[in-house]
Amino acid sequence: MLKLNSHPAGRHFLQIPGPSTVPDRILRAMDYPTIDHRGPEFQALGKKVLADIRKIFQTESPVVIYPGSGTGAWEAALVNTLSPGDAVLMYETGHFATLWKKIADKLGLQSEFIGNDWRRGVDASKIEARLAEDKEHKIKAVCVVHNETSTGVTSDIAAVRRAIDRARHPALLLVDTISGLGSVDYRHDEWGVDVTVSGSQKGLMLPPGISFNAVSQKAIAASRNAKLPKAYWGWDEILESNKNGFWPYTPATNLLYGLSEACDMLLEEGLTNVFARHQRHAAATRAAVEAWGMEVLCQNPAEYSGVLTAVVMPKDASGQHYNADAFRKVVLENFNMSLGQGLSKVSGWVFRIGHLGDFNDLTLMGTLSGVEMGFELAGVPHQKGGVLAAMAHLASTAPGAAKLQKAA
Amino acid sequence: MLKLNSHPAGRHFLQIPGPSTVPDRILRAMDYPTIDHRGPEFQALGKKVLADIRKIFQTESPVVIYPGSGTGAWEAALVNTLSPGDAVLMYETGHFATLWKKIADKLGLQSEFIGNDWRRGVDASKIEARLAEDKEHKIKAVCVVHNETSTGVTSDIAAVRRAIDRARHPALLLVDTISGLGSVDYRHDEWGVDVTVSGSQKGLMLPPGISFNAVSQKAIAASRNAKLPKAYWGWDEILESNKNGFWPYTPATNLLYGLSEACDMLLEEGLTNVFARHQRHAAATRAAVEAWGMEVLCQNPAEYSGVLTAVVMPKDASGQHYNADAFRKVVLENFNMSLGQGLSKVSGWVFRIGHLGDFNDLTLMGTLSGVEMGFELAGVPHQKGGVLAAMAHLASTAPGAAKLQKAA
Amino acid sequence: MLKLNSHPAGRHFLQIPGPSTVPDRILRAMDYPTIDHRGPEFQALGKKVLADIRKIFQTESPVVIYPGSGTGAWEAALVNTLSPGDAVLMYETGHFATLWKKIADKLGLQSEFIGNDWRRGVDASKIEARLAEDKEHKIKAVCVVHNETSTGVTSDIAAVRRAIDRARHPALLLVDTISGLGSVDYRHDEWGVDVTVSGSQKGLMLPPGISFNAVSQKAIAASRNAKLPKAYWGWDEILESNKNGFWPYTPATNLLYGLSEACDMLLEEGLTNVFARHQRHAAATRAAVEAWGMEVLCQNPAEYSGVLTAVVMPKDASGQHYNADAFRKVVLENFNMSLGQGLSKVSGWVFRIGHLGDFNDLTLMGTLSGVEMGFELAGVPHQKGGVLAAMAHLASTAPGAAKLQKAA
Amino acid sequence: MLKLNSHPAGRHFLQIPGPSTVPDRILRAMDYPTIDHRGPEFQALGKKVLADIRKIFQTESPVVIYPGSGTGAWEAALVNTLSPGDAVLMYETGHFATLWKKIADKLGLQSEFIGNDWRRGVDASKIEARLAEDKEHKIKAVCVVHNETSTGVTSDIAAVRRAIDRARHPALLLVDTISGLGSVDYRHDEWGVDVTVSGSQKGLMLPPGISFNAVSQKAIAASRNAKLPKAYWGWDEILESNKNGFWPYTPATNLLYGLSEACDMLLEEGLTNVFARHQRHAAATRAAVEAWGMEVLCQNPAEYSGVLTAVVMPKDASGQHYNADAFRKVVLENFNMSLGQGLSKVSGWVFRIGHLGDFNDLTLMGTLSGVEMGFELAGVPHQKGGVLAAMAHLASTAPGAAKLQKAA
Repeated sequence: MLKLNSHPAGRHFLQIPGPSTVPDRILRAMDYPTIDHRGPEFQALGKKVLADIRKIFQTESPVVIYPGSGTGAWEAALVNTLSPGDAVLMYETGHFATLWKKIADKLGLQSEFIGNDWRRGVDASKIEARLAEDKEHKIKAVCVVHNETSTGVTSDIAAVRRAIDRARHPALLLVDTISGLGSVDYRHDEWGVDVTVSGSQKGLMLPPGISFNAVSQKAIAASRNAKLPKAYWGWDEILESNKNGFWPYTPATNLLYGLSEACDMLLEEGLTNVFARHQRHAAATRAAVEAWGMEVLCQNPAEYSGVLTAVVMPKDASGQHYNADAFRKVVLENFNMSLGQGLSKVSGWVFRIGHLGDFNDLTLMGTLSGVEMGFELAGVPHQKGGVLAAMAHLASTAPGAAKLQKAA
Repeated sequence: MLKLNSHPAGRHFLQIPGPSTVPDRILRAMDYPTIDHRGPEFQALGKKVLADIRKIFQTESPVVIYPGSGTGAWEAALVNTLSPGDAVLMYETGHFATLWKKIADKLGLQSEFIGNDWRRGVDASKIEARLAEDKEHKIKAVCVVHNETSTGVTSDIAAVRRAIDRARHPALLLVDTISGLGSVDYRHDEWGVDVTVSGSQKGLMLPPGISFNAVSQKAIAASRNAKLPKAYWGWDEILESNKNGFWPYTPATNLLYGLSEACDMLLEEGLTNVFARHQRHAAATRAAVEAWGMEVLCQNPAEYSGVLTAVVMPKDASGQHYNADAFRKVVLENFNMSLGQGLSKVSGWVFRIGHLGDFNDLTLMGTLSGVEMGFELAGVPHQKGGVLAAMAHLASTAPGAAKLQKAA
Repeated sequence: MLKLNSHPAGRHFLQIPGPSTVPDRILRAMDYPTIDHRGPEFQALGKKVLADIRKIFQTESPVVIYPGSGTGAWEAALVNTLSPGDAVLMYETGHFATLWKKIADKLGLQSEFIGNDWRRGVDASKIEARLAEDKEHKIKAVCVVHNETSTGVTSDIAAVRRAIDRARHPALLLVDTISGLGSVDYRHDEWGVDVTVSGSQKGLMLPPGISFNAVSQKAIAASRNAKLPKAYWGWDEILESNKNGFWPYTPATNLLYGLSEACDMLLEEGLTNVFARHQRHAAATRAAVEAWGMEVLCQNPAEYSGVLTAVVMPKDASGQHYNADAFRKVVLENFNMSLGQGLSKVSGWVFRIGHLGDFNDLTLMGTLSGVEMGFELAGVPHQKGGVLAAMAHLASTAPGAAKLQKAA
Repeated sequence: MLKLNSHPAGRHFLQIPGPSTVPDRILRAMDYPTIDHRGPEFQALGKKVLADIRKIFQTESPVVIYPGSGTGAWEAALVNTLSPGDAVLMYETGHFATLWKKIADKLGLQSEFIGNDWRRGVDASKIEARLAEDKEHKIKAVCVVHNETSTGVTSDIAAVRRAIDRARHPALLLVDTISGLGSVDYRHDEWGVDVTVSGSQKGLMLPPGISFNAVSQKAIAASRNAKLPKAYWGWDEILESNKNGFWPYTPATNLLYGLSEACDMLLEEGLTNVFARHQRHAAATRAAVEAWGMEVLCQNPAEYSGVLTAVVMPKDASGQHYNADAFRKVVLENFNMSLGQGLSKVSGWVFRIGHLGDFNDLTLMGTLSGVEMGFELAGVPHQKGGVLAAMAHLASTAPGAAKLQKAA
């Protein structure tokens, strides 16, 4: 038998920006016998999760749940709404936006990429300008990433909607919030999104294995005429079966057990509280980065992500960045913590701290302590006391701080 | 919180032909924290399951593991090997063969269906004849279902291979053994299969959520020129990443924990023993059906399935079959057992008994007792004593019976 | 690592009369992190289980919960209420009554045993007669076993109470219902019991590890003057701590998680339904025994246990019983089922079928099939068809049978 | 259903000095179906844990495993070796030594307490002096606590042994290492201990519910003549049954599953490494305490505990200690961490930080951060930077630090 979880003593700190730590309540909920996916007990489960998940997407529209990874849900968003050769306007916010573009290309779409430097989010005015040029409405969809997991930059989706509207362009708005959902505010309906793509292993606190398409009525209408070949990802049969709480093929039952529990947890805490918790941890993390004398990859404070913080490694005398991956290896080997690597364009000089999902103050402090000690051991020049800065932020914003002030 | 598993007292008997009962060892293996899918611990897991799963398919070729259901793996087999408009020869063994054909049609392939009465398996000579006619080799693939879950009929795949070879036809051989793998003998290499499709929730004893393509070198070669659009299902990037034990996108980590344990269990018992166990239970089940004076749907003894037994409901005086679904409902409500329904063409007059996966003699006897008592309560005419016939078979073939004889 | 649960394929049938099969809901409830046993979260747990467990004992009096086995709770009942040299009147219903007497002797009490043939329960008139003789009230306690696990005989506790009252004797009534609680009707208050002893691993469906003393006000009063040395088992400090939901020493927290779930399950089903379910399964089991041409150990139908059935092995030509343990070994090795052995006086010629706890019709049928096939393989002469007799009983008393009759 | 683990988001920090955090491997090992405690599978388990646990106590002698708490194992040590009225010499190291004395008194022993100020460990010379006075050898046992959980002071047991030997006194040496075993070095054989008492929920990383007596041959010999009444705790029957891997009564099977896994984990890491890990975390904790300008309760550096650190709250202007329990409440409510309270003599002005069991650097840093932020929120005067001091210690002693130095 493979020895799973043979980490050194104590709990592993899984501080990559997803999969996030799966809480015990969810692991236990998933650890139940699989049931008949065509029986009455399953039906009750199906109806519950289909209703609950809408609340998490803040939508009244249907949410399609796939057995599959987020990559599959990207594909689903495209094949359900588009036809071969359709033009799609995409925006290079980072590694994952680039991967989504690659999928569009593989599927035979004509993708166009608005370039960007990976240190800021979507500039909606560029989208507006490009759409305004497209008098013939060849562009059928605008695709943007809400929370770019490779950079820690969150884009303003409402602004993208307004840009499309101002351009009076009929393109669909497709948004990836794979890593944002359930951690930072996301409003499918209010922001006028047509298809929202997400996954299970981030803010939903589940293991990877299911993914989502929240679909507007406009998107459903578009799907009736879309000509890209589709079978597994096709919304039509799923939406039909879902009406009764079932799926046209065998769903990932045990992950749905977990999803039910995850929605309960998020709704018990309250989405507003969940989002505030993440923003507070992100702010504390940035306070530490600043105190270390380092730089956050995201350069626009309005776009700082509540999900993760990407940190730029300092440069040595020759102007070379210290190696981020060597540093991460030191942290893993000495402190039993996984940090996120820099991907493609930022590989080697950026690392990422995940502070998403089921997370709290002391786990953050353990995390930041591990980073600070890792700098020391890896010989990365830094100012000490990042952890003190983070603590100052956390202590001053803890529930008890308000009580202290009220008393004073 | 949804009350899962709020069944009446005692363990539910999940005797549908999949998902099968997930054994405790697998549930517990899955109930571990998710790990970094790009770290060294994951890598060890990835390499292990990729090596183990080949043994289960009895192949030296790669096996691609998808987050997704078996339906997705059907699609994967087609989109990786075929181009728009390609002709594929399929064989109507039952409901699932029909669904696979439907997927081929949705993807823009030209499918041709060799009809059949759902009570017997593939007649390889018909395939040979059809291929022999196809002088121009327009047919690019032959698709057959190994163990047809809707009928309890297992087809002879080696015979199909010989038929293709005799016709000297270059078509690929694509086989679905979603419900057969890990319960009845299946030999990807020896039988010359190009793509084998399977899933997790049957003989592999896992919850649903991952599925498989075992791929021959010929299939991989074909995939390089295949023109159907593909991204998520594309073998190329997965096979490349798999070389190091990783996946190009986030895999279903916790199901891979379970898969590791499942392979251990099957290999500890020994595949030959696993297959013999299933055949013995199937024979005992048929002995019961015969004793009840009823008919097994499969009419060719050489093709009886070791995975499930489909039973034909008797007819009343007017020649109408007693209603199978009313009967199943009585069984569920009175005896806390789920039986499989008849699907499409056999809906209403056939029910199915699953005896696959992690299963043993006494669970089979509980199952058959529930069926026999269900007949009684549902007013379905039958001869009593099916359970005695099954017991006679089991007792005479138990390990202890051999000892008794040796002693005598 | 020890390979636990490396049984052959399929679920083990644990049909000893306890530990009974622990249902998934309870295993999962126990599989949570241990919490601070002095914190507010524990306090809520403590208060809940202390309230719930009273409902199961059908009492308004306190129930003391010990980390320890049932044997410890026997000792606790004695050391809290008695003084060195006190006379106690005990009743030899079987092996466990004998063990309890042995403990009384070890603790320095003067025990007196009313003999019995292990095939019937307590004859209350004998107790009455003995107490009537005891004009000086030297006898301080009457100790009887409610459900004797070694014989499958349930004694009438209300009758014992009446006997004591008729004798106008002040002795305390101490009752062991270790294997009866939660499976067969037991009424601590209504039957006027002073101390009821029980354990976790039978009708409460928990793993072994906690045990109970339900204590009347009269027992508590007695404990104030009882002189046997006691520390761990002393009620006083526990009852004091329990007022706030805590324990004076570290309690078995995870088993209390399980106890909370167990009480929920019993109360959701309803105690009356739980008891009826067990009686029905016991009756079906006896129908099988009779059909096999064998004898139940219990000779008084009014005292048949709903928890287990002890079966007498038939005799061979020389008048020797066939060996029960050889038979049990055949069943274990061939059919993956554990049956209970005959203990001390009935060792070798009696075996026991447990049908307690979380149990249902089809599990019973699997069990009885295993017994019938075991007879065959072990060469034990029997008439076939015990399973048919059991099925006839179950089918005719299933919920659906009533509907059928109403319809007719 | 009670909502267990409804803590705020993220994992609870359980930093009381036991129960310690139960690692996933152990929780999962315990989450298996209970098995027949008289069958061959149990026997293999029993033999394994009885062999493994000796390695943890560093003894060749038997270790008795009880279903019960550590309190019960205290009682067991006394009732097996002593007779009513026997004199026992005990040593007031703190709250738990006092509780043990109370138990001795309840059992009818004549206990004598060597007083102490709760800030240092056993002074062996006082024991030697007292034994030297006892010319008639009325003192039958010397009882000391190895790791006093209420104070964070570890006493030198080898010195006590030498003291007894120098006094040429035949008294038995009984030692409580309930909280020390498996975290700090303990050598039953080498130190000449007669009975060692321990429990499951500390260094063994299990939930509470089983406890231990490691027994020397001299202790076993004494038990044959000891006259205190005993039944449940009696070694004789248990040792007899244990020879075959069984217990005379139903053992706590699922906790034994966990014990098997716990021993595997400790022996895989290596006891020497386990002990070094705990000492390192204790040193880092003390570095933080010192940096905060506070005082550790233990005043003798040679006796600092590796298991926990008790911290003295600073005094205000009036010379009153700041309230430790108010501070702990702030920490629990703001930072989801449980700290240990001060008990009896040190109640209100001492709190305890547990750093035992399955624990690592980053969990310690989360813990210390929570303490430092708690001081802030509770208005407890302190110098900032305790966490930096702890980090300095950890970083300089991490495996990677050695590599750095070697490279330099």
